[in-house]
Amino acid sequence: MALASGMRLSARALLRPWVAVMKFKNPPVNSLSLELLTEFVISLEKLENDKTFRGVILSSDCPGVFSAGLDLTEMCGRNPAHYAEYWKAVQELWLRLYLSNLVLIAAISGACPAGGCLISLTCDYRVLADNPKCLIGLNETLLGIIAPFWFRDTLVNTIGHRAAERALQLGLLFPPAEALQVGMVDQVVPEDQVQSTALSVMAQWMAIPDHARQLTKNMMRKPTVDRLLKQRDADIQNFVSFISRDSIQKSLQMYLEKLKQKKG
Amino acid sequence: MALASGMRLSARALLRPWVAVMKFKNPPVNSLSLELLTEFVISLEKLENDKTFRGVILSSDCPGVFSAGLDLTEMCGRNPAHYAEYWKAVQELWLRLYLSNLVLIAAISGACPAGGCLISLTCDYRVLADNPKCLIGLNETLLGIIAPFWFRDTLVNTIGHRAAERALQLGLLFPPAEALQVGMVDQVVPEDQVQSTALSVMAQWMAIPDHARQLTKNMMRKPTVDRLLKQRDADIQNFVSFISRDSIQKSLQMYLEKLKQKKG
Amino acid sequence: MALASGMRLSARALLRPWVAVMKFKNPPVNSLSLELLTEFVISLEKLENDKTFRGVILSSDCPGVFSAGLDLTEMCGRNPAHYAEYWKAVQELWLRLYLSNLVLIAAISGACPAGGCLISLTCDYRVLADNPKCLIGLNETLLGIIAPFWFRDTLVNTIGHRAAERALQLGLLFPPAEALQVGMVDQVVPEDQVQSTALSVMAQWMAIPDHARQLTKNMMRKPTVDRLLKQRDADIQNFVSFISRDSIQKSLQMYLEKLKQKKG
Repeated sequence: MALASGMRLSARALLRPWVAVMKFKNPPVNSLSLELLTEFVISLEKLENDKTFRGVILSSDCPGVFSAGLDLTEMCGRNPAHYAEYWKAVQELWLRLYLSNLVLIAAISGACPAGGCLISLTCDYRVLADNPKCLIGLNETLLGIIAPFWFRDTLVNTIGHRAAERALQLGLLFPPAEALQVGMVDQVVPEDQVQSTALSVMAQWMAIPDHARQLTKNMMRKPTVDRLLKQRDADIQNFVSFISRDSIQKSLQMYLEKLKQKKG
Repeated sequence: MALASGMRLSARALLRPWVAVMKFKNPPVNSLSLELLTEFVISLEKLENDKTFRGVILSSDCPGVFSAGLDLTEMCGRNPAHYAEYWKAVQELWLRLYLSNLVLIAAISGACPAGGCLISLTCDYRVLADNPKCLIGLNETLLGIIAPFWFRDTLVNTIGHRAAERALQLGLLFPPAEALQVGMVDQVVPEDQVQSTALSVMAQWMAIPDHARQLTKNMMRKPTVDRLLKQRDADIQNFVSFISRDSIQKSLQMYLEKLKQKKG
Repeated sequence: MALASGMRLSARALLRPWVAVMKFKNPPVNSLSLELLTEFVISLEKLENDKTFRGVILSSDCPGVFSAGLDLTEMCGRNPAHYAEYWKAVQELWLRLYLSNLVLIAAISGACPAGGCLISLTCDYRVLADNPKCLIGLNETLLGIIAPFWFRDTLVNTIGHRAAERALQLGLLFPPAEALQVGMVDQVVPEDQVQSTALSVMAQWMAIPDHARQLTKNMMRKPTVDRLLKQRDADIQNFVSFISRDSIQKSLQMYLEKLKQKKG
């Protein structure tokens, strides 16, 4: 279950210097459990500090899914202190990814909803497999919940205000061609070319002097990050009080039970 | 002339629960007179408070025009107090529409300039008839006047900064194909399918839990609304002093006389 | 070398009233030397004050290049006072161009990197020659330097946040078809039609009442200009301390020597 066993630097990392491949491995759907979030941040920090690496390709070791997003079991039937701890970990991952000094490229060969989509949106480039099952989007409203403002900001930065407004309200999950057209991803390729395309794209990014690229990335993204940093505690309080509501808890429980029945 | 007689909940509203159809009926061109604005806001408020309704389709009962926009006779040859009252009513309509809890869909089968365009831009979705006479845009500069900053904000939110900058400076009225390409509308369909398309789209929006959708819409639009609320009185003063200028009054009078001669 | 001899109001200006044609002439590549910047601002100010002129077409008298951008010899091997003076002149040019009351149209028939691209982005419309050598973009990172925040703002206003983020990090120089698609330019035409297209477009802009158009342009761009005005001195200090670094000076010197060898 844990990221430690699931995230690895693949053999390819040795063939192409400076590039690591991190694969999520939290079966069955790479839910972003508290444990996985924590270990993800630690792994990322190690890579940032290890000057051997300049770029990371994020992908999945679970067939059919990039990541199903936030782990509903962390948000359901727990106490407020747990919700707060969990939300802080979600924030921390976003903060680290969105301003990472590394070049991040998402190689997406499976479903990419909600928190999975958010992770991909923090990357510098997104390659999506041309498979109708590879739906991508922030579909929170479909579960009766709301994407927080920094999810919104990340999406608006990527696809613009109008497309984000429609996508967020309707909880749209875009199939590959539409995802490309709206700008949710940068490239759609046959499933067996996702990794190789990600590596070619990475080579292009590796050609840029790190220092200038990092300062430029920071200049583009820092104002968005600062908005969360300014009100990080308030954002946690908002989440805790929202998720603790009876109506929300009931709707999450019903959703989780449906999922169990499907599996059963 | 009045909205009371012109705006109605069509029979279709009964066939599809929760959806009202409001049709402007202020012949000949659905000018946004003070009376119409006032009654529009009241009707909207009633629908918002009546939990029977979750969505409204805005359309026109005047052939060939959605709405010609602000009523120039309210802005010409009157006293400053009247200009102030009128402008406050325009603001009020925008404020109500832009943050409406209802799903608003514009079914546009006629010309849609200036204030008519603004109303359509506050909707959640715009369907335009594929007829070269169905021009849409904020064409204020053509009359020698200036769209206020919250018209600008609404347009920038819809089509982005660059397209808005060009469209506003040139007072562009987009024919259907261009309107679709620039993002001014979401769909262009044959004229006889405008209403049915609006209803199908509404069904898609009705599938989303209201509470989550409303909070998401609010999150997307509230910052834009707050910019006007912060300086609402100053905006009224600006309008009154601008519109009271001799040069502007003269140019409006000339324009109105041209219109009369056309009709004559 | 100087702008005084190189910038002229072409004969065409007399045929089409109100429109001046300014051609950069600082061979071989129209580098933006301190002298050229200063004279450019003065010429622009004269045109702004001379009510004969309502629009200016910016183009180049040096074959193959619109402008190569900032003059590296002004940023290399000089003292901090010179760097400060130079940067202030660059700021001044941008401030004047971006809020110019004149209609500015860029007629681009050659390479248009870095500062050359910035100048074109301040225009109201950009026409680019359909020639693969006509690359356009803010390619600062390729030289190991960083576009300042107001270059970023100008680009984001033109092509949106996501496209700007990618273009700035990778220092992308777009060939004509891609430049058009991303919105870097408004029109791509055969090389021999660049000037005539610019003149036709200008006629369209001349049809709008100046006062309304100018106020609208100001409303769109003033917030971006104000961001620089609020921190103009700090921006100069940033530039001076960045450009004075040994590592930056070395990399600029190496680049300049490569350029000399190419010519030699």
